[in-house]
Amino acid sequence: MKRHNFSAGPCILPKEVMLKASEAILDFDNGLSLIEISHRSKPFVDVMEKARALALELLGLEGKGYKALFLQGGASTQFLMVALNLLEKRAGYLNTGTWADKAIQEARIYDDVYEVASSKDANFNFIPKGYDIPTDYDYFHCTSNNTIFGTQMKSFPDCDIPMVCDMSSDIFSRKLDFTKFDLIYAGAQKNMGPAGTTLVVVREDILGKVSRKIPSIMDYKVHIGKSSMFNTPPVFAVYTSMLTMEWLKNLGGIPAIEKENNKKAQLIYSEIDLNPLFKGYAMKEDRSKMNATFNLTNEDLKETFETMLDEEGINGLNGHRSVGGYRASMYNAMPLDSVGVLVDIMSELERKA
Amino acid sequence: MKRHNFSAGPCILPKEVMLKASEAILDFDNGLSLIEISHRSKPFVDVMEKARALALELLGLEGKGYKALFLQGGASTQFLMVALNLLEKRAGYLNTGTWADKAIQEARIYDDVYEVASSKDANFNFIPKGYDIPTDYDYFHCTSNNTIFGTQMKSFPDCDIPMVCDMSSDIFSRKLDFTKFDLIYAGAQKNMGPAGTTLVVVREDILGKVSRKIPSIMDYKVHIGKSSMFNTPPVFAVYTSMLTMEWLKNLGGIPAIEKENNKKAQLIYSEIDLNPLFKGYAMKEDRSKMNATFNLTNEDLKETFETMLDEEGINGLNGHRSVGGYRASMYNAMPLDSVGVLVDIMSELERKA
Repeated sequence: MKRHNFSAGPCILPKEVMLKASEAILDFDNGLSLIEISHRSKPFVDVMEKARALALELLGLEGKGYKALFLQGGASTQFLMVALNLLEKRAGYLNTGTWADKAIQEARIYDDVYEVASSKDANFNFIPKGYDIPTDYDYFHCTSNNTIFGTQMKSFPDCDIPMVCDMSSDIFSRKLDFTKFDLIYAGAQKNMGPAGTTLVVVREDILGKVSRKIPSIMDYKVHIGKSSMFNTPPVFAVYTSMLTMEWLKNLGGIPAIEKENNKKAQLIYSEIDLNPLFKGYAMKEDRSKMNATFNLTNEDLKETFETMLDEEGINGLNGHRSVGGYRASMYNAMPLDSVGVLVDIMSELERKA
Repeated sequence: MKRHNFSAGPCILPKEVMLKASEAILDFDNGLSLIEISHRSKPFVDVMEKARALALELLGLEGKGYKALFLQGGASTQFLMVALNLLEKRAGYLNTGTWADKAIQEARIYDDVYEVASSKDANFNFIPKGYDIPTDYDYFHCTSNNTIFGTQMKSFPDCDIPMVCDMSSDIFSRKLDFTKFDLIYAGAQKNMGPAGTTLVVVREDILGKVSRKIPSIMDYKVHIGKSSMFNTPPVFAVYTSMLTMEWLKNLGGIPAIEKENNKKAQLIYSEIDLNPLFKGYAMKEDRSKMNATFNLTNEDLKETFETMLDEEGINGLNGHRSVGGYRASMYNAMPLDSVGVLVDIMSELERKA
């Protein structure tokens, strides 16, 4: 049975990426496995450099003073690194969900962190708007897409101070003016690759301005100075991320995938809005095109619905425990057909009920 | 041509591990790839728990108050985490090589770090002995095997304070009384798996004694409380490490592999000592059984020797730039036969010369 993987992350990747990654484990360089060669060997250095270049190219940031790094430790480590590298006196954070909240808590160890706005009281079902960002702050931090709650920032504030954005769950999914951002980070395990590496794209001129001594492994400048090879990189995760970026480039890059993502989102949200058995969780104007969160209006249908999902091979549709219900994650590699299968089940449930 | 991979790390892994890892990328859980399933799904939680249990079992540390974690960031991140979690006033470090030296520099940011002994003046070609470890220090840190210089600690001091050991390059390779150590860490990419995860084995009762607020992602107690799933783990690297530990267990565990490692070391060092064209770099009593470092006595033979190496498929034999010459890394997965091929070339060179 074909399975349709709606998992929120780690999540679906393109089939051809899986095939190439699997092959590379057996034979990458004249009979040697990708994971047994030195990370300093030319074949792997080429992979790292290609991955770094592709990230900038896809975002339209080549030659604009940005550097791309592939680090370890996930976005959770970036919560800390951002503060260590940029926070001197005070920073402003937009609190739009669990991960934004964690970023705030982690930064608070180092200095004063202020929430410019928060939707916590509404269990994060919308994106706050109309807030002020004090111009004397060190930076402003936001989260572009909130996987758990299914909300997404549709626009970003004009910001006189460095803007830092956690794009873990929607990087490479939609056109944006990425030059608005000074630091973008994203755990690979949604739109980019397997768990185990984190893309950091940083405008170099915002670095080196804090007075604290930054531990080497936490210092963006150290990683930039070593071309993202300060220590042994997570070879497999970087390679597979490179393959996924290549796949995206060959498809036509972000403009092409955005069209597909719009179709998928339109398909599922139309069904949610038209089918009386379902209601969306997030406020309409803030709905995420990556993660659609919704609930049954009649909990008595839960067992029937979930049996139908199982029978059609739908995987990973459970909502996060803090929201409940269902979450359809439709990252770049998710085919429109799979969303179609899900929507058919939702329609079929309405006919049955 | 069969290739013999003497790379210092990332390095050779067992063939059956490569095969299973490659298969898992295509199909791990009823048609889903290992790298597209949720890390919270039962199939992966089982992998993580099995990996953690196998690490303690292989080291003989089950039921003795230790916890095993699979983290990200390599040993370089452990240099920092050890200091953040354990360093209150002062710590003693044994400086036996480049990595030990880096561990010292990283810890110095936080507090006073004292070198109990160092072989730096001799470019680390031996392991210092007979040093004192002050009993009022917070901990003692050492590096069991020095990949770059080819030295290895054959015994460990009796220590009244917590003993921390970086075993990145010889973990699971030889019998030791691992209960002597309070914290062991090891980057996976030598004897355990691909680059991208780091094993930490820590006696729980040494934690929670420093006054600083530790960032969550750097706090061993946080990772223990979340069963090594505080954030998305590096799924592929943990799975492949689990496979390698299973392979080792099935072979007979550390006692069985130690016999093999002794044979390989004996074979290469005999040749180095008997063949007048080569001289060993490290002092004999401190020679590493994982990494044999040696030089040609006559540099005129360099080209001939290296051509012969290439012709027989020998890979990764270049010494580190700080030592020069050659380094034969013979980790657990290296077959005795491959060392035989290398030794045959060395003998052949002597006959030719």
